[in-house]
Amino acid sequence: MNDKQEKKSIASFDEVRSLIDELPGPDVQSRSAAQERESQLTKPRGALGKLEKIVEWLASWQGQYPPHINHPRTVVFAANHGIAKRGVSAFPSSVTAQMVQNFISGGAAVNQLCRVFDSDLRVYELGLDQPTRDFTEGPAMTEAECAHAMAYGMMAVEPGLDVLCLGEMGIGNTTSASAISLALFGGTSEEWVGNGTGISAKTRNKKVKIVKQSCELHSNTGGDPLRIFAALGGLELAAISGAILAARLARLPVVLDGFACSVAAAVLFAVKPDTIEHCLVSHCSAEPGHRKLLQHIDKEPLLDLGMRLGEGSGATLALGILRPALECHLGMATFTAAGIDTAVSLDK
Amino acid sequence: MNDKQEKKSIASFDEVRSLIDELPGPDVQSRSAAQERESQLTKPRGALGKLEKIVEWLASWQGQYPPHINHPRTVVFAANHGIAKRGVSAFPSSVTAQMVQNFISGGAAVNQLCRVFDSDLRVYELGLDQPTRDFTEGPAMTEAECAHAMAYGMMAVEPGLDVLCLGEMGIGNTTSASAISLALFGGTSEEWVGNGTGISAKTRNKKVKIVKQSCELHSNTGGDPLRIFAALGGLELAAISGAILAARLARLPVVLDGFACSVAAAVLFAVKPDTIEHCLVSHCSAEPGHRKLLQHIDKEPLLDLGMRLGEGSGATLALGILRPALECHLGMATFTAAGIDTAVSLDK
Repeated sequence: MNDKQEKKSIASFDEVRSLIDELPGPDVQSRSAAQERESQLTKPRGALGKLEKIVEWLASWQGQYPPHINHPRTVVFAANHGIAKRGVSAFPSSVTAQMVQNFISGGAAVNQLCRVFDSDLRVYELGLDQPTRDFTEGPAMTEAECAHAMAYGMMAVEPGLDVLCLGEMGIGNTTSASAISLALFGGTSEEWVGNGTGISAKTRNKKVKIVKQSCELHSNTGGDPLRIFAALGGLELAAISGAILAARLARLPVVLDGFACSVAAAVLFAVKPDTIEHCLVSHCSAEPGHRKLLQHIDKEPLLDLGMRLGEGSGATLALGILRPALECHLGMATFTAAGIDTAVSLDK
Repeated sequence: MNDKQEKKSIASFDEVRSLIDELPGPDVQSRSAAQERESQLTKPRGALGKLEKIVEWLASWQGQYPPHINHPRTVVFAANHGIAKRGVSAFPSSVTAQMVQNFISGGAAVNQLCRVFDSDLRVYELGLDQPTRDFTEGPAMTEAECAHAMAYGMMAVEPGLDVLCLGEMGIGNTTSASAISLALFGGTSEEWVGNGTGISAKTRNKKVKIVKQSCELHSNTGGDPLRIFAALGGLELAAISGAILAARLARLPVVLDGFACSVAAAVLFAVKPDTIEHCLVSHCSAEPGHRKLLQHIDKEPLLDLGMRLGEGSGATLALGILRPALECHLGMATFTAAGIDTAVSLDK
């Protein structure tokens, strides 16, 4: 953790709010430089679609032109949830630690994806033997616990990185994500709840009921996004929010994973929408709440492949699009250099 | 060209039809082997979505388990169109040859993509100084010319490849693609015509009218897909169809590019739908006819990035998803090997 980040560490929600108010904006000069070159490349204007927008996004939020993708990092935060003991997942809580072990030994999907795209994988555990409280009984975290987990997440941002892919592992966390979404954006519990890791219809019905009742129980949050986060969230989700903030301070573009990860970003969006402008959503999860959530936070996913694995898999997979997008921008010839007739000579 | 492919070369539409009737089906044993391993990997069943389907598709059509992606090839066929002299494009026909030169000198988008994904790029010109006839005046090609271009396209399939990405370059070819689509699948000219390389509203109106009138002029094809292809098609599109057929014979899975490329596949689909079962559509083009066409040929695109460049760019970009999909399948640990509790213990 460098000096700057230490100074920005946070212990209360007031400090989170102050930090959000101080965040730097996009580098418009670097973005213009990207647009300028883009318009000269040997292709019809706009013909590379979102690939062109990716380069502008990288330049804007790295604050440099040309941008680069030489040191991507994939960070997976892992934590356990008190709500899991209500039987809302197809897997027991013990699987969180077992999957962390699988990440360490290289056997998970995210390991293969990091290898293919040369992304530096870091896994951070947030006390797997100390789950959050069951939020059907009381708030999952105190304000201090939630802020502390955010501060912990900020540590994952280190100097020298150029893209940060974020992900999570935590049995029970789609229940938490659904409850936060319902509390933040309204609608019905039914709309926000999906099948998670693959639960039965009966378990899903129970999950729907738990999400609804939990939101009612914690309605005393008064709609405050950070208090909602503490009441219904999880340690790994809070850590993701912290990493998003630290990345913004460090001029590091962020790639978000699926539903749970996007909910952590949505909490920041609900505090102040432009807080997550430096975040790109890698994919739309098969978890039905994700598509709905993305509409609320005004994000278009890059990929839509029916994935619903978490663990940063979608975010890391997006490097398979980000890097070629940048290579096209940097490597293509200009119309002038290639001696190609430009458009509109026949289009009168 | 190996012996087998030489024997399969074609000079008439009857020969094309015979060839189509003889095509091998999927290797169900290799597909089952892929499914079997997939079910044991350390993730909830189906959690990698389309990534899992990609591996099944590779195994089915390579006819081997495990499948591999060690020698992908990107083939771009280039040709000119008589219809271009009607002013239906934002660029003059001279740009086809200039872009071929750009491919050769490494300055185009497809060059950067092939470099990133280590795909072997081959560019084939089909007599750029001999465009097809203007199909507002008569058939673009004779049956023999069309069949010959298909036979030429078959040559692009050589032994030792494991994935074939197909693309095209040909000023005027979205007009041809729209006309073929209208003739094959009906609807209105307006629905099938887009902005191609970026034409004005006035030029687009002209293009709509030309597509409509050309389909009326060639209504004597009696709905026969191959006769429609000769009347309204192009040499590079016929070559793509030939390459698709040769790839099937060689057990080589095919990745299709955008609108024009998919139209070449649609002609084969219209002859017999299962002819293009070994083809995966890489992306949905911003050219509006493409989405409509994909519904008609029952294909879901892998990516949807607003691209509309052609030249095999979308097909090659799909390697950024195909390869990590395969690496996940091959490299992930099984539940047993990783000692992870399996599902449903809590899901009663």
